[in-house]
Amino acid sequence: MNGLGMQKFEHPLNERTRIYLRIESLFRKLGHSADLTQPFEYQVFFSSLFNMLDILEQVQVKAELGKDLEKLRLQYRAWMDIEGVDQSALLSVLEQISQVHQNLMQTTRPGHSLKEDRFLSALKQRFFIPGGDCCFDLPALHHWLHLPLEVRCRNTHNWMAQLLSLSDALSLWLRLTRETARFEPQIARNGFMQSEMENANLLRLEIPIDQGVYPMISGHKSRFALRFMSFETNKNCEKDIEFTLAVC
Amino acid sequence: MNGLGMQKFEHPLNERTRIYLRIESLFRKLGHSADLTQPFEYQVFFSSLFNMLDILEQVQVKAELGKDLEKLRLQYRAWMDIEGVDQSALLSVLEQISQVHQNLMQTTRPGHSLKEDRFLSALKQRFFIPGGDCCFDLPALHHWLHLPLEVRCRNTHNWMAQLLSLSDALSLWLRLTRETARFEPQIARNGFMQSEMENANLLRLEIPIDQGVYPMISGHKSRFALRFMSFETNKNCEKDIEFTLAVC
Repeated sequence: MNGLGMQKFEHPLNERTRIYLRIESLFRKLGHSADLTQPFEYQVFFSSLFNMLDILEQVQVKAELGKDLEKLRLQYRAWMDIEGVDQSALLSVLEQISQVHQNLMQTTRPGHSLKEDRFLSALKQRFFIPGGDCCFDLPALHHWLHLPLEVRCRNTHNWMAQLLSLSDALSLWLRLTRETARFEPQIARNGFMQSEMENANLLRLEIPIDQGVYPMISGHKSRFALRFMSFETNKNCEKDIEFTLAVC
Repeated sequence: MNGLGMQKFEHPLNERTRIYLRIESLFRKLGHSADLTQPFEYQVFFSSLFNMLDILEQVQVKAELGKDLEKLRLQYRAWMDIEGVDQSALLSVLEQISQVHQNLMQTTRPGHSLKEDRFLSALKQRFFIPGGDCCFDLPALHHWLHLPLEVRCRNTHNWMAQLLSLSDALSLWLRLTRETARFEPQIARNGFMQSEMENANLLRLEIPIDQGVYPMISGHKSRFALRFMSFETNKNCEKDIEFTLAVC
């Protein structure tokens, strides 16, 4: 199977990974919309930024991610001096982990400077009113949207730069976590499967689009159950579904 | 003065017009994002659509707009058979008003069919969770995003078509309302002005961008006060500000 006509799904097996994936998705949107090339990209940008600030206020992401990086570092260190392991690749990974960990720890509180920003904090208060980004609701935003593109892009990139150490650390942890397992072929009999494993963080699935199904998954670090639903009927799918799965 | 380097502001002088302007802004976003040409345009589309449904649930827009169109029709009819008035243009406007009014009244409840849509209603429940459009939060959306572009565009345009009579009626009312007054030059001494008028719905302003100010306006149908704020300092602007104003 190749990636063509495949939908990729990821499902977190613990609350930390759930938060990390949400933040990653928000970073992806920020990165895509920061150049403001389309008329309404500012909406994607600001809603992603404000969602990010809400998450960072509610969850101690820096502390959690710091611990997770440290755990990863110990796992990788255990491979040192073991025959057959590419030592230079290993050292490079260990160096990357140290670097992002150090940068993350040096950031006082990710996102804090953005919460203090006068323009952003005034905007955030009214941004999520239904239809509330009309000029009369947010005159300062309306003025900002009339500023030259280079001024606005300097702003958006500056704001993102405040979150860079978090973004780098999160990307590395997710990349290394995703690399811990390979995709293996599976069959969900009558659209259902369950399985046990040890200490996993993340399920990754590749499902052929033409099956017309999407997965509903429940699980935690040592067990999960997966039920495919038909997109058309929104009901349980009773067919056997072939897909590939990586338990990371 | 021409439109170059101008920021256009509109301020509603009553609650109905406020709602109409918000809905118009949402229709503009829907129209722009419905072709899903950019990776995250679905976010602009769905957030605008769900904001619209929230407003339509809270406010009896159909009844209000029906009354406002009827009022407009009576105003225009008063111009019939008056010398110097272009009668064929007048008849054409009256015909347009009748047409959109009739179509609007024939729509049972604008947006109601969308609230009944299974896919949309499931999506709406979770769409505004911070960072909540990850695949594991909204697997059905994730599947939908993998469908061929033409299928998705057929969906978005179908959903918008359910709101067409509202969109047409609203556009016409706003266009005719905006046409009731011309822009006149004004000076806000020390950044401030106030004025009285009769039965206005809407203020329209054109302000040179290079003044670096935006307006804070309070008002109702017979009076308004306008204070310019400096964008840089976020404080009252004490300069005289030249701008143009139309009281519609």
